[in-house]
Amino acid sequence: MLRVPSPQAPLLAALSGTPASPPPIWLMRQAGRYLPEYREVRGKVSSFLDLCRTPKLAAEVTLQPLRRFALDAAIVFSDILIVPHALGQKVEFVEGEGPRLEPVRDAEAIGSLDRTSATEALAPVYETIERVVAELPQAVPLIGFCGAPWTVATYMAEGGGSKDQAAARLLAYRDPATFRRLIDLLVDASTDYLVNQVRAGARVLQIFDSWAGSLPEDAFERWCIAPTKLLVERVKAEAPGTPVIGFPRGAGVQAERYVKETGVDAVSCDTSQPLAWIRDTLQPLVPVQGNLDPVLLVAGGAELDRRVEAILGALASRPFIFNLGHGILPETPIDHVARLVHLVKSGSA
Amino acid sequence: MLRVPSPQAPLLAALSGTPASPPPIWLMRQAGRYLPEYREVRGKVSSFLDLCRTPKLAAEVTLQPLRRFALDAAIVFSDILIVPHALGQKVEFVEGEGPRLEPVRDAEAIGSLDRTSATEALAPVYETIERVVAELPQAVPLIGFCGAPWTVATYMAEGGGSKDQAAARLLAYRDPATFRRLIDLLVDASTDYLVNQVRAGARVLQIFDSWAGSLPEDAFERWCIAPTKLLVERVKAEAPGTPVIGFPRGAGVQAERYVKETGVDAVSCDTSQPLAWIRDTLQPLVPVQGNLDPVLLVAGGAELDRRVEAILGALASRPFIFNLGHGILPETPIDHVARLVHLVKSGSA
Repeated sequence: MLRVPSPQAPLLAALSGTPASPPPIWLMRQAGRYLPEYREVRGKVSSFLDLCRTPKLAAEVTLQPLRRFALDAAIVFSDILIVPHALGQKVEFVEGEGPRLEPVRDAEAIGSLDRTSATEALAPVYETIERVVAELPQAVPLIGFCGAPWTVATYMAEGGGSKDQAAARLLAYRDPATFRRLIDLLVDASTDYLVNQVRAGARVLQIFDSWAGSLPEDAFERWCIAPTKLLVERVKAEAPGTPVIGFPRGAGVQAERYVKETGVDAVSCDTSQPLAWIRDTLQPLVPVQGNLDPVLLVAGGAELDRRVEAILGALASRPFIFNLGHGILPETPIDHVARLVHLVKSGSA
Repeated sequence: MLRVPSPQAPLLAALSGTPASPPPIWLMRQAGRYLPEYREVRGKVSSFLDLCRTPKLAAEVTLQPLRRFALDAAIVFSDILIVPHALGQKVEFVEGEGPRLEPVRDAEAIGSLDRTSATEALAPVYETIERVVAELPQAVPLIGFCGAPWTVATYMAEGGGSKDQAAARLLAYRDPATFRRLIDLLVDASTDYLVNQVRAGARVLQIFDSWAGSLPEDAFERWCIAPTKLLVERVKAEAPGTPVIGFPRGAGVQAERYVKETGVDAVSCDTSQPLAWIRDTLQPLVPVQGNLDPVLLVAGGAELDRRVEAILGALASRPFIFNLGHGILPETPIDHVARLVHLVKSGSA
């Protein structure tokens, strides 16, 4: 079922360690609300989760940005919280507010989660991938993804987003054995989820650890690095040859250790990571991806041009994938995205 | 008016570069909702800002934690948003929601801010300091503080807290000249504010840059480092000899540059900064402060004990001030604070 990676795919070349000029580019949340054609499709279903679980529509929105821009990858339209949903947790997305979950904070609640029906619950994502891959040229791989166990657990324990992920941190400190059960369950479920995405046609994987920055080093080791390492190892055993990009957002100094210890094939850098540090510390270890400020893409203008030049100048002569430092914002003007892709593709680095 | 720093004050010794065993300790937001006696005083006034502007009550709550715990510093009870309030921006604190401000996002709104009456508006803070200092022993200095221009500007532009400070970042990218006026105004107002706090009796200053982590390096240089450098230079010119602690929360790798370029006398480290990196990169430059996870202080238990040991073991043999990596949480059990102070003061490092 696996497609043979095409040597012509710039994203795969970069991930295999070959610098390219121009470098490949894709954008986190490239399928989304900044596109009017996305908003039109979104209007056809009552909830965001319904969109993720309707393969025909999810495939359509996955492909939309590729029709507008010369992007080097598609990323399956889904959400990291589809995994807790598949485990039986109640998850909804409240318009203008974000995700809301029935919190899972004790042994009983965690014990009631169930992996046996997860594959069936996640089947629409796999069908979405099959539909998208059928439409994509060989040079444009599809990226599958999941949230890292730590980040998904923060939403599960908190019952939604939060500014400090205190509920998960508190559970992890107070009752590490119970929290470990949740993390282990997420490692298992995420392994299946990523492997099944590869079987459906994903040729690259990304693990989003959006809240990696909220933990001190010992907890970071225990709840970010160790579970990610296990997840990467298992995925590599079951779907060999599929590169895995890790995105430890906010990890700061700890990103170096994350790269060395988790075994990811590439690392995505957030906006706050300085270019010289990325170049000198991370890029010698693995290909790097990043890290334009999504707010600067909203602003546009000469400052955007200058920053794109700076990023290309610092990173593009070694294996590099152009991306944002965080997801694209809904208010991003389409013209600015076109300008960005043009700047990167005109290859002035 | 300035008190001569006492050589017996452990906080001042640490800030002057002398390691102490045990090291000094104070806690960010040590005067606050986790104390029942604070909640009692808070109940006497209708708003949080009223409490900050009622010297008798603000002095009382400043002193409360010192009566319970053997802390080595007091920090004046106030809020970083008292400065925009003093500049004429409408600021209120909504119970259970946080600060709400009338947003300031264009040249006209910024032009309407006025520094001329700020000293009068901030007079209650200075009176609070005088009252507190009259009660404190020489060995316990009072810390004055302000928000860094960047962080205060994020609240002013956003109209409150936010998860990504997008309004300020957008204004800074789109109209840097206008944003510069806001930052310059905040540097001026913050200089006066810090110097007046020293004149009232503060012997140490801290600059809180809570949102230093949201900017890419070029914007970090422009909006965090440069204004902080100017603020520190001016304060040092007008109130020589008063040590300034910088707290660039979330700055990650960029904390090193922040220390080297701003001229702060010490740096406060957030929870995510690894101890070995603090020890090897920051502590050779200046005394360091931090960085226990406030959530771990809520949790308590053996894990708290172990982490306190680890922090002391890594940092206490060189100039060091024990603190949290962020403010103390309202749900923190008082017994855990007592345990922490005991652990640090029993000096097992």
